[in-house]
Amino acid sequence: YGGSSLSSMEKMKAIAKRIKAAKVSHTQVVVVVSAMGQTTNNLIKMANSAVKNPTKRELDMLLSTGEQVSTSLLAMMLNEMDEKAMSLNGFQAGIQTEGLYTKNKIKDIDITRIKQYLNDDYIVVITGFQGYNPLIGDITTLGRGGSDTTAVALAAKFNCPCDIFTDVDGIHTVDPRRYQDAKRLESITYEEMSELAFLGARVMEGRAVEIAQKYGVKLRVAQAHANTQGTIIKEKDAMIEEKHITGISVKDDIMMITLHRLPSPEKSVAELFSKLADQEINVDMISQTLLEDGTISIAFTCDSEEIEGVRETINAMHAQYPDFFVDEDSELSKVSVVGIGMRSQSGVAARMFRLLSHNQITFKLVTTSDISISYTIPTQNIDQTVALIAKEFNL
Amino acid sequence: YGGSSLSSMEKMKAIAKRIKAAKVSHTQVVVVVSAMGQTTNNLIKMANSAVKNPTKRELDMLLSTGEQVSTSLLAMMLNEMDEKAMSLNGFQAGIQTEGLYTKNKIKDIDITRIKQYLNDDYIVVITGFQGYNPLIGDITTLGRGGSDTTAVALAAKFNCPCDIFTDVDGIHTVDPRRYQDAKRLESITYEEMSELAFLGARVMEGRAVEIAQKYGVKLRVAQAHANTQGTIIKEKDAMIEEKHITGISVKDDIMMITLHRLPSPEKSVAELFSKLADQEINVDMISQTLLEDGTISIAFTCDSEEIEGVRETINAMHAQYPDFFVDEDSELSKVSVVGIGMRSQSGVAARMFRLLSHNQITFKLVTTSDISISYTIPTQNIDQTVALIAKEFNL
Repeated sequence: YGGSSLSSMEKMKAIAKRIKAAKVSHTQVVVVVSAMGQTTNNLIKMANSAVKNPTKRELDMLLSTGEQVSTSLLAMMLNEMDEKAMSLNGFQAGIQTEGLYTKNKIKDIDITRIKQYLNDDYIVVITGFQGYNPLIGDITTLGRGGSDTTAVALAAKFNCPCDIFTDVDGIHTVDPRRYQDAKRLESITYEEMSELAFLGARVMEGRAVEIAQKYGVKLRVAQAHANTQGTIIKEKDAMIEEKHITGISVKDDIMMITLHRLPSPEKSVAELFSKLADQEINVDMISQTLLEDGTISIAFTCDSEEIEGVRETINAMHAQYPDFFVDEDSELSKVSVVGIGMRSQSGVAARMFRLLSHNQITFKLVTTSDISISYTIPTQNIDQTVALIAKEFNL
Repeated sequence: YGGSSLSSMEKMKAIAKRIKAAKVSHTQVVVVVSAMGQTTNNLIKMANSAVKNPTKRELDMLLSTGEQVSTSLLAMMLNEMDEKAMSLNGFQAGIQTEGLYTKNKIKDIDITRIKQYLNDDYIVVITGFQGYNPLIGDITTLGRGGSDTTAVALAAKFNCPCDIFTDVDGIHTVDPRRYQDAKRLESITYEEMSELAFLGARVMEGRAVEIAQKYGVKLRVAQAHANTQGTIIKEKDAMIEEKHITGISVKDDIMMITLHRLPSPEKSVAELFSKLADQEINVDMISQTLLEDGTISIAFTCDSEEIEGVRETINAMHAQYPDFFVDEDSELSKVSVVGIGMRSQSGVAARMFRLLSHNQITFKLVTTSDISISYTIPTQNIDQTVALIAKEFNL
């Protein structure tokens, strides 16, 4: 259960009732919950009001309290409904992580304790988003949206299906908050879902989909507060193959950085991206042009919030290569069209370019993958663009 | 540092500066902090808005987040001041507890990890009020005011002095929030402090004073946000012995329960108090009268918030002894006068009874100990009573 489905005590009580009902139809139930509503954002605000640059170790310590609050409250509610229930935080649930603070990855889960409670007929309520790094003895978080990852990793470990409950009724061709005529998909392949998730669809965390695909976890994404079908995420089948385009995903708050006339491209580009990787900056789209003087212009996009790290990296590059100059473009969004059908059927890219040009929508960068095509577009044009594409491809 | 000294980011930043200064004058510094301001009360309210009777295990899980937030924020602030600092929660700090949920006791502290950080020149910031019960693998809390206990237990383990920083400048003859002419004590014995603490003075937790006495921890209680002397708590010395009365303590929100005509006193009274103990209800004052028919009337006081447990106990007693009847008196306060001089000098009790009678203040119960005398008084009369006693004994 994601945070928005738990944004009030009333909503949480409704969830508790659903879990009690699920316990009747299933032998054993493990529930993973996020922090309530805006809790994580509020904790981040708190850290930023305390200091300019919160230490990441301490930020993990701080943020992990959010899920501990929601699991304990939910377990209390289940107890009051005469259900045996027990909350466990990341450490207690045996969720072992590794990596950098605030961006840990699940290494393994020791499910001994969870199993024991399940065998004693408890509903086990586990904090999403967090774990424990046994090497350093510290509490760690998995990055935003990490609760999905926790849930799917547990399902993989227990070899059981996993329902992801959120505030939208499954996966849509376009985010319904952005385009109200968006259609719900009955099913979608892991591959398309993964592409949509990475491309910025806000329904599910991309890493979670990857783990589900890797371990064959049957996923269902459905509405937390309604009895709807939702969307099944599974291996591809013949039917899905027929569609050109499955959906549109949009990602806001991205920025584009261009390095003009960067010398020694064979060396400097590798250095640039390894420096960015050292800072754990996720570079998204990349475009490179070789200039007549042997230098290159290279542009890439990343989340606007990564800007400090990017600037540091570029300063470090300047120390080494003093001659290039830099442009920053902000207030950009990325729109992507995704469909497994693009692989076998051409013409999608052509239709897209024609559509944008015909409507005078400019884009800074374009990238394509096996099953998607993405454009950076000024954020002010994004709603118009989404509507145009949705109509064009009947999404 | 108690919660009221950390009730805002600004206050916490001021505390961080003081800790940095303390690090200059001391080789190694361990800091224990409570939850910020009203956090613990707000979490309890949250639990009560979620369910009628929060499960105690889950309440511990919930409440322990409060200190985790304050330690991580304080460590961030120290980091920003270029101090090496690390927060540890109760589990990470090796604070092993035993007992019942919400009322655990510290069994032992494995200080290996803290020592390691101290040797690496870190300021170690530890969550007060909480620990980890290794037998059941659960997070536990130590009951209200438990942060003092954490601090003193750590000082005992490290064989070092302990400063308790709070929002009043040391120990006063009367709580200054209640009687503005109260005088600050330069020093006080463990014994008197312990008596004052148990009798309801809000400055320090009684268990903490007991541990300090047992392990000879030098305590100083001083103001968190001022450079004042505070009060030293130590073994008694000749000077102190001369005073009759050291201070007055007041405890509000108590209630009195009277069981009238309880039969078989030799058996039933023991049953009553063992049933109350099973529920972890702290009975305070007790008064018993043998009646002419061989039954007894027995009255006792406890915190008003314990009322549900008391009623359950009495219902259980009724099942066994149907004939007694019950009175509940609420809105009572307890006033106690404490002084090691009472032991050697008589007359204090007589002066007290005369004073109350002369001013038409009625009391329900009176109890005396070696160094104190306590009265239950209607809460509406308590301020008047405190002022009268303070003037009478020049406190």
